[in-house]
Amino acid sequence: MNKSLEFYFDFGSPTAYLAYKRLLQLRDEYDLDIIYRPMLLGGVFKATGNTSPIAIPAKGAYMNQHDLPRFAKRYGVTLNFNPHFPINTLNLMRGALAAQRLDCFDTYIEAVYTAVWFDGKKMDEIDVIAEVLTGAGLDSPALLALSQAPEVKAELIAATEAAVERGVFGAPTMFMGDDMYFGQDRLDFVEQELLGAWPST
Amino acid sequence: MNKSLEFYFDFGSPTAYLAYKRLLQLRDEYDLDIIYRPMLLGGVFKATGNTSPIAIPAKGAYMNQHDLPRFAKRYGVTLNFNPHFPINTLNLMRGALAAQRLDCFDTYIEAVYTAVWFDGKKMDEIDVIAEVLTGAGLDSPALLALSQAPEVKAELIAATEAAVERGVFGAPTMFMGDDMYFGQDRLDFVEQELLGAWPST
Repeated sequence: MNKSLEFYFDFGSPTAYLAYKRLLQLRDEYDLDIIYRPMLLGGVFKATGNTSPIAIPAKGAYMNQHDLPRFAKRYGVTLNFNPHFPINTLNLMRGALAAQRLDCFDTYIEAVYTAVWFDGKKMDEIDVIAEVLTGAGLDSPALLALSQAPEVKAELIAATEAAVERGVFGAPTMFMGDDMYFGQDRLDFVEQELLGAWPST
Repeated sequence: MNKSLEFYFDFGSPTAYLAYKRLLQLRDEYDLDIIYRPMLLGGVFKATGNTSPIAIPAKGAYMNQHDLPRFAKRYGVTLNFNPHFPINTLNLMRGALAAQRLDCFDTYIEAVYTAVWFDGKKMDEIDVIAEVLTGAGLDSPALLALSQAPEVKAELIAATEAAVERGVFGAPTMFMGDDMYFGQDRLDFVEQELLGAWPST
C-alpha cells in the first residue's frame, strides 16, 4: 500500500510552493499519495496568533537572500520573488476547493502556483486569475463561479478551522498519520519516513 | 587551512543547544574552527521585533512534541525539557564572556548547556550557577565576579548590537564568511559547505 501524506497549503506562501514542487518529486520517487488540504493561511494566523516570517524585516531579508535560494537550488526548483507579495489568496483558495469538486485540481494547483511563484503575476485580481486558468486549459468561468458558491466559501472556513484544530499554525504543514511536519525544510524527515530509514517516534 | 564558523548563541534556546552539540560533532569530523559569539537573545528579539516560537502555543507544542525530539534523535543528543523555561540568561551570557577572558570557555559552555538542557536546572539563580561551575572544576567566584564587571556587561551589550547589525534575529545563527545560517536545522547546509559538495551561491 502506498504511503499517503496530507499537505496543508496556501498559495501565498513561497515555502509552501517549494514544498509543493518537492512533494511532486517525492511522489514520483516513492509512489506517495498526496492529499491536498487547501486552507486560508490568514485565518490560521488569526486563530493561532502566528505571523508571517516577513513580519520581521531581518528574518524576511535572510529568507529572501539566503534561505529560500538555498532550498530552491537543493530541490532544483526555480522560485521567483513575486513583486505583488503578499497576495490576498482568498479567491485562489476557494478556487482550489472548486477545482477539487470539478476534478481538475492537479492542473489548477500547478497553474496557480506557477503564476504566483514563477511568473510573478498579481493573482489577487479576478481577471488575472481568469487569464491564467484559461491559459492552462481550464474552464475558468465554471471555476470562478463555483469558487463563489456559499458551500465552497463555507468549506474553506471549515477546512481552515479543522487545520487549526489539528495543530496547524502555518504553511506548509504536512501530516503522515499523526506525525506533523511544519515547513518545507522538514521534507527530509518525510523522505526518511518514506525510505523507512527512520525509527518511528 | 581549517574552515571556521561563527556561532551566535544564547543558553536559553533549546535549538541553540542542539546546534552546540551538533557543531561539536562537525568540528571533530571536519576540523572545523568554531568561534563562539555569546549574545543576549532577549536583546536581539527586542531590537528586531522577533519573538520566541513558544510565544505561539501551537508552535511551541509542535516543537516540543514533534520537532525537537526528531532532531535530538537525528543528532544522537539528549535534550530534556527544562521545567524552569524560559530562563533569564543575562548572568549566564555575561559569564560566557568572562569565561572567554579567563580562558576556560569550553568547560564553561559545556557545563552551563548541560545544566540547562540536560539536568533541567534553574540556571537563573546565582547559587545554582555557582554550584554548577564549581562542580565542573571551574573557579566559580572568579567567573561570577568578572561576569559583573562593567567591561563585561558592556561587551555583552555591544556583542548583541553587533549581531543585530549583522542581520541576526534569533538563535542559533551561524556564519561562514558572509553566508548566514539561521537555526540548528540549517546545519546540513553547513555540512554540505564543509564537504565542499555545495556550489557556493
